Amino acid sequence: MSKAEFAPEATARLIEQGNRRALARAITLVESAHPDHRQQAMALLAALLKDRQAIRIGLSGTPGVGKSTFIESFGLHLVGSGLKVAVLAVDPSSARSGGSILGDKTRMDQLSRHPGAYIRPSPSQTHLGGVARRTREATSLCEAAGFDVVLIETVGVGQSETMVAEMADLFVLLLAPAGGDELQGVKRGIMEMADLILINKADGDLKSAATRTCADYAGALRLLRKRSQDSEDFPKALTVSALEGAGLRQSWEEMQALVAWRREKGVWARTRASQNAFWFNAELRHALLTRLEHDPEAAEASRQLQQAIHAGDIAPSLAAERVVDIFLRPKA
Amino acid sequence: MSKAEFAPEATARLIEQGNRRALARAITLVESAHPDHRQQAMALLAALLKDRQAIRIGLSGTPGVGKSTFIESFGLHLVGSGLKVAVLAVDPSSARSGGSILGDKTRMDQLSRHPGAYIRPSPSQTHLGGVARRTREATSLCEAAGFDVVLIETVGVGQSETMVAEMADLFVLLLAPAGGDELQGVKRGIMEMADLILINKADGDLKSAATRTCADYAGALRLLRKRSQDSEDFPKALTVSALEGAGLRQSWEEMQALVAWRREKGVWARTRASQNAFWFNAELRHALLTRLEHDPEAAEASRQLQQAIHAGDIAPSLAAERVVDIFLRPKA
Repeated sequence: MSKAEFAPEATARLIEQGNRRALARAITLVESAHPDHRQQAMALLAALLKDRQAIRIGLSGTPGVGKSTFIESFGLHLVGSGLKVAVLAVDPSSARSGGSILGDKTRMDQLSRHPGAYIRPSPSQTHLGGVARRTREATSLCEAAGFDVVLIETVGVGQSETMVAEMADLFVLLLAPAGGDELQGVKRGIMEMADLILINKADGDLKSAATRTCADYAGALRLLRKRSQDSEDFPKALTVSALEGAGLRQSWEEMQALVAWRREKGVWARTRASQNAFWFNAELRHALLTRLEHDPEAAEASRQLQQAIHAGDIAPSLAAERVVDIFLRPKA
Repeated sequence: MSKAEFAPEATARLIEQGNRRALARAITLVESAHPDHRQQAMALLAALLKDRQAIRIGLSGTPGVGKSTFIESFGLHLVGSGLKVAVLAVDPSSARSGGSILGDKTRMDQLSRHPGAYIRPSPSQTHLGGVARRTREATSLCEAAGFDVVLIETVGVGQSETMVAEMADLFVLLLAPAGGDELQGVKRGIMEMADLILINKADGDLKSAATRTCADYAGALRLLRKRSQDSEDFPKALTVSALEGAGLRQSWEEMQALVAWRREKGVWARTRASQNAFWFNAELRHALLTRLEHDPEAAEASRQLQQAIHAGDIAPSLAAERVVDIFLRPKA
């Protein structure tokens, strides 16, 4: 989109009317790091209606747990009930692996062809912070486009769960059936983020293992249930079979129950407010550092001081203060 | 230390002469976040001799692996050979747990009383970046104080290994004997950082398990040995018994061999240079954000815009740009 022809208001209206092509182009725009595109993206986000809210569901699970199959089945269940569903992804590895979710899209064959669904491949940027910031803006675009549910998938690498939790209303952890010992394998931090733990593959030979695993997690969750803001019933563990479609309706009912409870108690609004504060701080850090990087005098000072550090003439902390002094001094 | 009485040159000379009290006070100074103390700390770091280099050894291992016992035994082995050894720690959890390494110090009873050793409890700050930045500066102080070896311990929480690897010349991973299946339990990223993997507890009933585990890791390391900058023999896996003192001499010989190889090939100097660049960037980000936080106009704009974000009137990214504009505009 060239600078001249981009009309934020008109684009915003197209997105709100459900124009998929406008939505896709807008997501590409928010994903771009080009300064002109950032300006356009911000104008577009400012022009959008803010009164539409989707249920944003963060979804994490280790590879092999059947996440694509789950998204396909669960997504089809939702669109089958007349809901509009968008699927986004925070996948910091996609830059390296060549975009794993593109593969997912072909695997989510039925869902991707359903008119009520929209599946967006993960942006291929190497920097997790960048991917997450843009995915959050893509989520806002999907909300304005009238989607009822936005599923935000993460591959569970590094801090991606934390990032996704900061943009989701609910966090779902998908796990495979396992022996009791493997309970330790799930990082405690992720357990603590989860509102709902779904043990997938509760079918065929694995059905009894899934039931046992579910009971193990239910026990572990009782110990973690300390979050005073939550209802007494959550976090909760359930078994599902993405393959056979079992447990999907119940999972969705549980999610809706939690959403209703959180809306009633004001938790929903408080969470969104604190998430906005989190992203404002992240954007602030990013914006400031971008300005520093583009300041020619600071860049030159930085180059010279790095040599002085290398020669052992100055400590990194003192050199950093000097660069900041140069960056912030009034320009002629 | 009050601002008036602090004399960076005199303090630097005391530290270089091996005055332990001056060293301890200087480390307290670099750990302080108070602006006056930061100024003093930077003046002190600038005043220190830069031509003394210790071997900085990063040490990681999960709880229960016998890390304190290992540091005690290994440290005693080193001081027994006439070397001076400092032990520092990056422990982001110590703020919460009330300083676990203070417990370690009492457990490192013999080492802490040896005149050739200096054990420093972990600074109790909640922010990992802060702890790591200050530990790096404490490492420089220990080098100037003439220590031959600085052991930098990390508890392996979050990104602390990465931080420690960025301030160490060598990275040692301490593991316990385990069944073959548990090999998966060590995060690949940490395996890739390690120069030496030591399987501790190679004594009594666990001796044969330790030997097996060592062979398993040796196999895994062969697959990882892709780092072209390294010698053909590293990373390497060895068994040790901190309890019986077995394998400590060999471990130290291996470390010295790797150091000699790296010095000869220029890897040592290149690594220190790239680490300095890493910390310069970290300090730069930190210094800039600290200035922003202390700018009254930016703080006021930030407060107002957070309300606007909360009301849905502005996107976090646009609000962030506005705050940065206010922060950077020339002051009257």
